[in-house]
Amino acid sequence: MIPLPGETIRWEEAAGEVSLLDQTALPARVQRIRCRDVERLAEAIRRLEIRGAPALGLAGAYGVALAAARSREPDLPRFLAGVAESAELLRTTRPTAVNLSWGIDRVLARVRAARSVEEGRRVALTEAKAVAEEDALTCRRIGEHGAALLPDRCTVLTHCNAGALATSEWGTALGVVRSAVAAGKEIRVLACETRPLLQGARLTAWELVRDGIPVTVIVDSAAAALMQAKEVDCVIVGADRITRDAVFNKVGTYMHAVSARFHGIPFYVAAPHSTFDTGSTAADIVVEERDGDEIRFRGQEPVVPARAGVRNPAFDASPLALVSAIITEDGVMRPPYDFTAAGKRREAP
Amino acid sequence: MIPLPGETIRWEEAAGEVSLLDQTALPARVQRIRCRDVERLAEAIRRLEIRGAPALGLAGAYGVALAAARSREPDLPRFLAGVAESAELLRTTRPTAVNLSWGIDRVLARVRAARSVEEGRRVALTEAKAVAEEDALTCRRIGEHGAALLPDRCTVLTHCNAGALATSEWGTALGVVRSAVAAGKEIRVLACETRPLLQGARLTAWELVRDGIPVTVIVDSAAAALMQAKEVDCVIVGADRITRDAVFNKVGTYMHAVSARFHGIPFYVAAPHSTFDTGSTAADIVVEERDGDEIRFRGQEPVVPARAGVRNPAFDASPLALVSAIITEDGVMRPPYDFTAAGKRREAP
Repeated sequence: MIPLPGETIRWEEAAGEVSLLDQTALPARVQRIRCRDVERLAEAIRRLEIRGAPALGLAGAYGVALAAARSREPDLPRFLAGVAESAELLRTTRPTAVNLSWGIDRVLARVRAARSVEEGRRVALTEAKAVAEEDALTCRRIGEHGAALLPDRCTVLTHCNAGALATSEWGTALGVVRSAVAAGKEIRVLACETRPLLQGARLTAWELVRDGIPVTVIVDSAAAALMQAKEVDCVIVGADRITRDAVFNKVGTYMHAVSARFHGIPFYVAAPHSTFDTGSTAADIVVEERDGDEIRFRGQEPVVPARAGVRNPAFDASPLALVSAIITEDGVMRPPYDFTAAGKRREAP
Repeated sequence: MIPLPGETIRWEEAAGEVSLLDQTALPARVQRIRCRDVERLAEAIRRLEIRGAPALGLAGAYGVALAAARSREPDLPRFLAGVAESAELLRTTRPTAVNLSWGIDRVLARVRAARSVEEGRRVALTEAKAVAEEDALTCRRIGEHGAALLPDRCTVLTHCNAGALATSEWGTALGVVRSAVAAGKEIRVLACETRPLLQGARLTAWELVRDGIPVTVIVDSAAAALMQAKEVDCVIVGADRITRDAVFNKVGTYMHAVSARFHGIPFYVAAPHSTFDTGSTAADIVVEERDGDEIRFRGQEPVVPARAGVRNPAFDASPLALVSAIITEDGVMRPPYDFTAAGKRREAP
């Protein structure tokens, strides 16, 4: 297991631009996308060329740095106004993952405190890189705390991708798996393919195969039957937003939470504090409804009759009552969850 | 709603062959496949060009009639041996749905009682057509009994396709919906797309759109979240085999059964007596494991890395404890299920 810093997203020093691994091309092609301006980065976020809550935090942070670097505005107030405008463009690309706004706001705060355009550019980039470095460290800590929960020779079921590709490196849910493997445990992963965009089949399987960790892909709806057959020891997923009462994550997560509870299997969430939004409740959160064409077409082929309706919510909300533990960089939280410290940390990063 | 007798599968008098609607081409293309011999019909079953438990019963029945019609053997014992050999070829195409064997055995019994080759051919075809006609009547009765369970203005969630395309016409689970609509009720259907082969998106949506019944397609894993949002009034599915202790149906059915129980939503199974195998328990049944390429590829594009494992069970088993009612042609069975009469009927068709 070789961590590859900056593989998911990084600042390209020579070109002064952001590059990211094109997650829509995997596993067939490994190719990078170069974002010369914020518009292209915003497009990359909308198209899910980069996705995953912590990685979206990095995209937000680098996006503000990119806006600052690209600005040709010599006047500080107008420079700041332009950067703020770019920040809002980025913020509206995806509504549910809280980390995107978190990354944007963190860098924006530094830029706003700058006394010159030059300083604004410099502190933006420094802060964005700091966000990425901290994320790498955060994932390692999540991994170490979570690894203690996994017995040797166990099978972990996961949904979507909460791995290196969803973070700066190492991953959250898959970070727990990686740290357990690094500690000498034999861990097998059941990766739910994750319809409609197959992040589990395409991304989770790809990064685990590369690390030599045994991974088996199943259709999402087979998870409950494998739990029934006692082939799943625990479920670990990431999170896009954790409110006071629920974990928002890729649609299907709630189904696994219900099945895990029914079968008496632990259901763990691995997420950094930047995912916490404990000032909100589930009812406050907008769940992104994505384009129905993601379901209507398989490649170019229509698989749903044109006159049928389609609903394509990207996320669902698992009540905390179904969550056995939340693994953060500070340790393992158990019910009843006390978010006092987490909330403070979130408000004052 | 116009029933189309013989649309799913029928005997073509002029050509002396079996024709069936190619269910792998829908909804993009409506085309029929002509099976001149049992080998082509067996291939159609393996490829899922025809599928659905009751429709497989018809395919088995027509398959034996086709073998009898095509035999060039003038000697009765050798004619019977040849037909029996073809029957075994058909029987091994798919192991889980019990109706396939049921349809084969029903026609085979008639052929074996024949006193001449000519009579064998005649009774085989007569019996196969009788199986199809009875199935149509059976579905109507299932529909009428089940319709009484549906309140007006309700939303039914279903998985895979247990509709006209899975039977001779009208359907089992969708037969219940059709009969409720015919009785003047407003019914909406949530069709789970049903990975990996999308029978819900492709077939259920196609036949409901054609009938003007509102249908919305969702990814399978969104079902639990819609139950949580109180958007599902009940679940109705078909069955491939009902043992003394469980309902075998398309993988994913068990997940819906668990979620329905968790949310206090009725979970109904609609199936004819030909689906009952109450002499067996779930542990006796072989669950078909289909080719992993159904998951590995999206059209031509690989979506799972070659070195990752894949598991592709076609069915799962929902314990009867999770089933609110079984709707058969004889009425609505409620727990605790007493299969004494059903078992007798199954043994002496």
